[in-house]
Amino acid sequence: MPSAHLQTYAQRAEKHANPAAKALLETIERKSSNLCVSVDVTKKADFLRIIDIVGPYVCLVKTHVDIIEDFDSSLIDRLKELSAKHDFLIFEDRKFADIGNTVALQYSSGVHKIASWSHITNAHPVPGPGIVTGLASVGTPLGRGLLLLAEMSTKGNLATGTYTADAVRMARAHRDFVIGFIAMHRMDGIGAQAGEAVEDEDFLILTPGVGLDVKGDSMGQQYRTPREVVLESGCDVIIVGRGIYGKGSDAEVREQAERYRREGWVAYEGRVSPRS
Amino acid sequence: MPSAHLQTYAQRAEKHANPAAKALLETIERKSSNLCVSVDVTKKADFLRIIDIVGPYVCLVKTHVDIIEDFDSSLIDRLKELSAKHDFLIFEDRKFADIGNTVALQYSSGVHKIASWSHITNAHPVPGPGIVTGLASVGTPLGRGLLLLAEMSTKGNLATGTYTADAVRMARAHRDFVIGFIAMHRMDGIGAQAGEAVEDEDFLILTPGVGLDVKGDSMGQQYRTPREVVLESGCDVIIVGRGIYGKGSDAEVREQAERYRREGWVAYEGRVSPRS
Repeated sequence: MPSAHLQTYAQRAEKHANPAAKALLETIERKSSNLCVSVDVTKKADFLRIIDIVGPYVCLVKTHVDIIEDFDSSLIDRLKELSAKHDFLIFEDRKFADIGNTVALQYSSGVHKIASWSHITNAHPVPGPGIVTGLASVGTPLGRGLLLLAEMSTKGNLATGTYTADAVRMARAHRDFVIGFIAMHRMDGIGAQAGEAVEDEDFLILTPGVGLDVKGDSMGQQYRTPREVVLESGCDVIIVGRGIYGKGSDAEVREQAERYRREGWVAYEGRVSPRS
Repeated sequence: MPSAHLQTYAQRAEKHANPAAKALLETIERKSSNLCVSVDVTKKADFLRIIDIVGPYVCLVKTHVDIIEDFDSSLIDRLKELSAKHDFLIFEDRKFADIGNTVALQYSSGVHKIASWSHITNAHPVPGPGIVTGLASVGTPLGRGLLLLAEMSTKGNLATGTYTADAVRMARAHRDFVIGFIAMHRMDGIGAQAGEAVEDEDFLILTPGVGLDVKGDSMGQQYRTPREVVLESGCDVIIVGRGIYGKGSDAEVREQAERYRREGWVAYEGRVSPRS
């Protein structure tokens, strides 16, 4: 059996036990899109407008609902409608990073009630395994999936070396709930003990810091192309933010979404097609 | 000049340039309290009731406003009134952990508008220096202070060794805004280059995982006593949560707050009094 990233998304969907991971892989295959758009705007109207435009081109919409000033429960109702209309999943990029007891409350409660509507969320491994236990106590009964931040795209970040290996080990100990990583590369076998069976593991790799036109911002973000991320580094989903929605008119936003979808898909086809 | 933690809080307050750090040190001295209460409840009424009870005994109230289900702007108005009535500062324990551009929005915007009312907040160093730059762009003009999480109190956490040293270096590069650490020990001189002048630095150490009656919870939290934390490890503020407000009647909550205040203060007096 070839390693996960050399199989098609459809083949991987068939085998994945976690409902959120399976749904994401099926959506990617159905829409020929491994594009996730990150919608980082502070007004409800802008948020919904952008998602309605890019919806047809994406498998996943990444949100930061905690930056939306006029957030209310109607926003979530509308987001769920758009998710059904355009056939995409929702990923609240909360980057949970607290002790288990606290993240369980942050995930389930508060104004945002993330667990009730976000198919996928993410967490930093830095607090130790208790963060996964805490989130799983809320998310597993709902069929949700968790990504651990094994690497980051920013300059001078500390998610490297043994930190990354510890993150992968933490995921491996909770494979029913941890479906993959925010990372820059594949994590297959990283941190495995001698003799540990890891050949059949299939962790999804979702990768931020993807851009076609710029190399970075003034606050340390660094960008790579879809080809570098998907074909060369073997990642599964490209996350693009300001590169798509920062472009002005609705027509331009639509055009950029389709451009990134196409670039990501071509890179994937090059990866899974038989090599000569 | 003795190292910071052997000076009195009053001596340190005189020299601190950051307005939030100075105000916290002055409050500690004025109230003879190095106790911070962490109020992790999900209802507005409980939140305000507990704070009104413990207010006289604390220098700082630590909040997780994102777990409060009936949060609205009136809660913040009421919290600010209690802060004035009982003379304490506010610390939203947000544990920011994203790229600079995103944390600047999370800190300033959204439903919670943390920067507008929280004197102190905190962040994980894992995204690299951009997280400090991003938060400082919002917090510095408001006179706010930032704590970096250099260590954690949970079992199996990854904030150790070079990670901790990198956190301290990141703080040292932004001493106007980073006022100290969430940590289990003093960080004086950690990660310093040979020849770097660090003798006069005064980073506040705020320490979670403090308890007098239990040793841990089921999700990896581990506890130490005020004496271990303040006298033996040289930390400046003890953070206590369920150990105080989880006790039942208002009278018992008040009694526990006074008990922890007294234990924390006795430990501090033992630390700064001349040794025989």
